Amino acid sequence: MNDKSGCVSLAQCFFDYSTSKILVIRSRKVGTLNRFTQALVIAYIIGYVCILKKGYQDTDTVLSSVTTKVKGIALTNTTELGERIWDVADYVIPPQEHSSFFVMTNMIITPNQTQSKCAEIPTPASMCTSHRDCKRGFSDARGNGVRTGRCVNFTDSVKTCELLAWCPLEKTIEPSDPALLADAENFTVLIKNNIRYPKFNFNKRNILPNINNSYLTECVFNRTTDPDCPIFRLKDIIAEAQEDFQTMAVHGGVMGVQIRWDCDLDMPGSWCVPRYTFRRLDNKDPENNVAPGYNFRFAKYYKNIDGKEFRTLIKGYGIRFDVMVFGQAGKFNIVPTLLNIGAGLALLGLVTVICDWIVLTFMKRKHHYSEQKYTYVDDFGLLSNEET
Amino acid sequence: MNDKSGCVSLAQCFFDYSTSKILVIRSRKVGTLNRFTQALVIAYIIGYVCILKKGYQDTDTVLSSVTTKVKGIALTNTTELGERIWDVADYVIPPQEHSSFFVMTNMIITPNQTQSKCAEIPTPASMCTSHRDCKRGFSDARGNGVRTGRCVNFTDSVKTCELLAWCPLEKTIEPSDPALLADAENFTVLIKNNIRYPKFNFNKRNILPNINNSYLTECVFNRTTDPDCPIFRLKDIIAEAQEDFQTMAVHGGVMGVQIRWDCDLDMPGSWCVPRYTFRRLDNKDPENNVAPGYNFRFAKYYKNIDGKEFRTLIKGYGIRFDVMVFGQAGKFNIVPTLLNIGAGLALLGLVTVICDWIVLTFMKRKHHYSEQKYTYVDDFGLLSNEET
Amino acid sequence: MNDKSGCVSLAQCFFDYSTSKILVIRSRKVGTLNRFTQALVIAYIIGYVCILKKGYQDTDTVLSSVTTKVKGIALTNTTELGERIWDVADYVIPPQEHSSFFVMTNMIITPNQTQSKCAEIPTPASMCTSHRDCKRGFSDARGNGVRTGRCVNFTDSVKTCELLAWCPLEKTIEPSDPALLADAENFTVLIKNNIRYPKFNFNKRNILPNINNSYLTECVFNRTTDPDCPIFRLKDIIAEAQEDFQTMAVHGGVMGVQIRWDCDLDMPGSWCVPRYTFRRLDNKDPENNVAPGYNFRFAKYYKNIDGKEFRTLIKGYGIRFDVMVFGQAGKFNIVPTLLNIGAGLALLGLVTVICDWIVLTFMKRKHHYSEQKYTYVDDFGLLSNEET
Repeated sequence: MNDKSGCVSLAQCFFDYSTSKILVIRSRKVGTLNRFTQALVIAYIIGYVCILKKGYQDTDTVLSSVTTKVKGIALTNTTELGERIWDVADYVIPPQEHSSFFVMTNMIITPNQTQSKCAEIPTPASMCTSHRDCKRGFSDARGNGVRTGRCVNFTDSVKTCELLAWCPLEKTIEPSDPALLADAENFTVLIKNNIRYPKFNFNKRNILPNINNSYLTECVFNRTTDPDCPIFRLKDIIAEAQEDFQTMAVHGGVMGVQIRWDCDLDMPGSWCVPRYTFRRLDNKDPENNVAPGYNFRFAKYYKNIDGKEFRTLIKGYGIRFDVMVFGQAGKFNIVPTLLNIGAGLALLGLVTVICDWIVLTFMKRKHHYSEQKYTYVDDFGLLSNEET
Repeated sequence: MNDKSGCVSLAQCFFDYSTSKILVIRSRKVGTLNRFTQALVIAYIIGYVCILKKGYQDTDTVLSSVTTKVKGIALTNTTELGERIWDVADYVIPPQEHSSFFVMTNMIITPNQTQSKCAEIPTPASMCTSHRDCKRGFSDARGNGVRTGRCVNFTDSVKTCELLAWCPLEKTIEPSDPALLADAENFTVLIKNNIRYPKFNFNKRNILPNINNSYLTECVFNRTTDPDCPIFRLKDIIAEAQEDFQTMAVHGGVMGVQIRWDCDLDMPGSWCVPRYTFRRLDNKDPENNVAPGYNFRFAKYYKNIDGKEFRTLIKGYGIRFDVMVFGQAGKFNIVPTLLNIGAGLALLGLVTVICDWIVLTFMKRKHHYSEQKYTYVDDFGLLSNEET
Repeated sequence: MNDKSGCVSLAQCFFDYSTSKILVIRSRKVGTLNRFTQALVIAYIIGYVCILKKGYQDTDTVLSSVTTKVKGIALTNTTELGERIWDVADYVIPPQEHSSFFVMTNMIITPNQTQSKCAEIPTPASMCTSHRDCKRGFSDARGNGVRTGRCVNFTDSVKTCELLAWCPLEKTIEPSDPALLADAENFTVLIKNNIRYPKFNFNKRNILPNINNSYLTECVFNRTTDPDCPIFRLKDIIAEAQEDFQTMAVHGGVMGVQIRWDCDLDMPGSWCVPRYTFRRLDNKDPENNVAPGYNFRFAKYYKNIDGKEFRTLIKGYGIRFDVMVFGQAGKFNIVPTLLNIGAGLALLGLVTVICDWIVLTFMKRKHHYSEQKYTYVDDFGLLSNEET
C-alpha cells in the first residue's frame, strides 16, 4: 500500500467521502420516463401523504365529558290515571347519566303490587287442572315468580298455577300505540360537551365562543340554519337518522348522537368545531330481533300505614340517546414527517430500478448502455466488457 | 464546456437519466450471501409485516353502544322479611346504565330509619363515661352522624356518645353467607352491542344475521356449543373468569365482559364477529384491599301519615358487570402499504452495505475487488488504483 | 456474447453480486461535511426517534374500569327541614355510576307536589287579565305544565294563567349561598381503577402492591406526601384544579379526575404507575353560558292513605366527577423498529445527495470531481469526459 489511496490511518479514512459513480444517459426517451415516474412518486408523497392524509402530523384521540339537560312537559289522558302531567323528573330515568340519557315515551303501569300469591298468566306451560301440575318451588326463567304448588282459578273457566310474586302480575300486553308521551317529540335537550386532546394540551367545548347567552336560550339545532346550536329537538334527532319519532316512541329504541371533533391543530383552534350526526343503534328490523325496541322495568316503592311495602311497577319504553364523541387531532411533528419522507425517498429508489430495467431490456441500444454501466469481475480478474 | 457532456441548457439536463455504475462480482460465495440476506429481508417484509401484521392496512378503533337486559327471579326466606320474591326491578340498581349493569346478590337492610338521635355503635372511639367525652358537633369521617354532646346507654352496660343521624343505625355486621340472592346465578342477561368503525363507515351488531328469533329466545352462551349467542347466564360469566359465583356473591365484585371486535374489512363483513371473554376486575386478594368486593348504599324513602320522612337503608352487595368493547379494524390503504414498502426497500439497501463489508474485509481477493470498486481522487487529481 | 461477462444461464446471473462503483473523494472539507450531516441524521434517529419517542415500541391504548365509593356526613340546619343529617344514600344520585359519581352540594326542595291545578309563576308571558289571555292546552317549552284556559289569582294583586301541573310549582329562586351541604368539602372518595392493555395482556390496579390495608384506611391523596393514595378529599380535588370548593358548591359543576397510565412495558411492570390530575370541565365563565354549573331535577314519590301519589321535587346542584382514564403503553416490537430504521436509512441517503450538490457546485475543484463521478453516454456512444 502506498500513501495515496489506501487508508494510512483510520482518521484519514474517516474523512473520505464516498459517492457513487454515475452513468448519465442522455436520451430523451429514458429521461422523460425517469422524470415522469419520479413526478408520480413525488406527487404521491407531497399531494396524497402530506396534504390529503396530513402525514406530517402526529395524532391523538379525544377525551370527552358530556352532560345533558332535557326540557319539556307532556300531558297524558288515560282512563287509569286521568289527566296527568309528565315533567323531567318523571320521564328521565335515572335522573342523570354519563354521556347518555333516557326519555320515557311509553309505559305499562302495574300499580299496587304486593308480595303475595296470585294465579299465573295463562300460557300452555302455566295452565293446570290439578295441584299436581304445579311443581312447588319451580321458577320459570322468563316468569314472574315461584310456584306455590297449587292450581287456582285465573278466571272462572281457566285454572293456572299459583305464584308467589309481586301481585297483581304485570299484564302481558303490547304498549299503547300511539305512545302515551307522544308530546315527547317536542322535548329539547342541551348537550354540553367538553373535549381534550391530552397530547397537545388542547381543550374545547361544543358551546363555541361566538355563541352568546341570548342565542343559546332560543336556538334549536338545524343542520342548515343553526349547525352550531347545542340544543336539539328530539324529533329532529330522530328525523336526521331517517326514522319516525312516533313509530319509534311506541316500542322505544336507541339513538346515537355522534359528535365528531376532527381538528387540524396547525390551523387556528377556532377552526376545530364539532360535527353532529345521528344514527339509530338498535335494530328495528322485526327479523332476528328478540325484544325489539328498548325498555326496562323499574318500580316506585311505597309503604302503607301498617308498614307493609307495595310498589308500582313500570315497564318503561323509551328512547335512549347515547352521546358518542370521537375524532382525531393532528399537529405537525418531526417524527411522522421524516418517517414519511424517508419512506418516500426509498420509493424514489424504486424509480431507478424500474428505469434501469426498461433501459436495459427494451431500448434499442441496451448493450451500449449495459457496457458502460456494468463492470464484471470474477475471482480471476477483470472481465472485458468489450468481449461481451 | 462543449455540447456533448455538460448541460447546454437546463432543459437538456432535466432529461438526463442518471444511474449508478455497477460492479458485478461473479462469485458464488458473495452471490449466495447476497441473495440469502435479501431473501431474509423480503421474507420479513412480505411474511411478517404484510401478512401477519397486515402492514398494508389502515386501522380504526371501535365506537360502541351497549344495552343490557337481565331476566330472572329469586326467592329469599329470612326471618325479617319472610318469603320474598325479587325481580328485575328489585335487584338491578339503577334500572338502566350505559355499558354496565349491577345485580344485587346480598344486602344488609336497615328499615324504618328516621332523622333522630341514637347511641353510636360501640367502638374504642365512641364509648364514653360522661357527656364530656362526647364533643358536640364532632363528626367522624367514617361515622354515621354528628355527635350531640351527650353520653347515653347503648345497652345497659355500655355507654356511647349520642348521634344525630338516620336512626336506628346500620348494624356493623358481615353480609349473610351464603348470599341472600343465591338464585342470581341462574339469571340471564341479553347484551346487545352495536359497533361502528367510523373511518370505514362499517356498522355491525353482535346479534349476527344468521341468528333467528326462535334461537334467541332459547339460547344461552356457551363457548363451544353456542359461541354466538348474546345471552349469558351470570354463573357462566363468572365461571369463565375462573371464579365461583356463590363466593363472589357474598361480598360482591366487579366483572369485565370483554367484547373484542377484530375485523379485517378486506374480507367479507360477515367474517367480523365478536369474541367474548370474561375477567374479574376487582381484587379478591384480602391483602392490600380496603373494602373488598363491591357494595354501595342506597335508600328507599317513605312518608308516614304525619308527613314525616323515613327510609329503608340498603347496603347492597352485588356484582357489577362492565361491558368493555374494544378492537381494531383494518382495511387496505395505500399510505401504510407504501410506507412499509419504502421502509423495506431502505432495509434492502442495508444488505449491500453488509455484503460490501464482508467482501472487502474477509474475501481472499478483497484487494482485487476493491481496485475495481473504488476510484480515489483528491484535490490534486486521480490517485492510481494500480499503485495501491 | 461470450462466457465471461454475460449471463450464460439465469442461475449464474442469480448469484452475481452487484455493488455500486464508488468514487472516494479524499478531501477534508467534503469529508467533514459528510460525516457531520450523517452524525446529525443518526443522532436524530437514535436520540430522538428511538430514545425520546420510543420509536422501537408498539403501542396500545388503555381499557379501564372504575368504581368509586364516597364517604362523609353533612349536617344542615334550615328553617324548613330543621337539623338534618345527609349521608351517602342521600347525596349520591344515582347511588352508583360507571366511571362517574355525583355529590349533591345544594338543592331547592319543593315538597308535597300533587297532580293538580295552580297559578303559574308570574312572568310577562304568564300574567293575564281574563280567561281569554290563557290558551287552553298551551304548554311553554320552558314551563312547568299545561294551561287549563283559566286566569286565576297568583296573589291578591297578580293574576296568572292556571296550569295543570305538579303543584305547588317549584319556586324560581337562586340556590342558597353558601351551599347547604358546605360540609361536603371534607367528603372523601376512594377511586378503584383497574386497567388493561389488551395487546400486551398487561393488567394493573391503581392500588399499588406496596400499599397495605392500614395505610389505605388512613391516607388521603396529597401530591407531595401521598401521591399513590387512591383516596381523595373532594376539597383537594377542586383546589388542585385551581378552583374554590365553596364557590363551586353553590351552582355545581363538572370535574374531571384524569388518571394517566403511561407505561413503558420494556421496564419492570412496577414502574407503571398512575398519575392523577384534575381539571374543571364545565365553563364557569358567566359569558356564553346558559345554565351555568351543574344541576338536575329528580323526585321522590310517595302515596298518601287514599292511594293518591305525591312527590318531593328536588333540584339538586352538585359536583359531578368524571373519572377519565387514558394513557399509552409501549413495548418493543420489531415492526415499528425496522420501520423507523428503514426510514432513517433512507434519510441517510439524503446526506449523499446534499454532499454531492455541495461538492459539485461550490468546491473549487468541482470539475475535477465531476469528471470522475460522471460518465456521459448518449444514443451514439460514449461522450468523452476529457472534452468537458
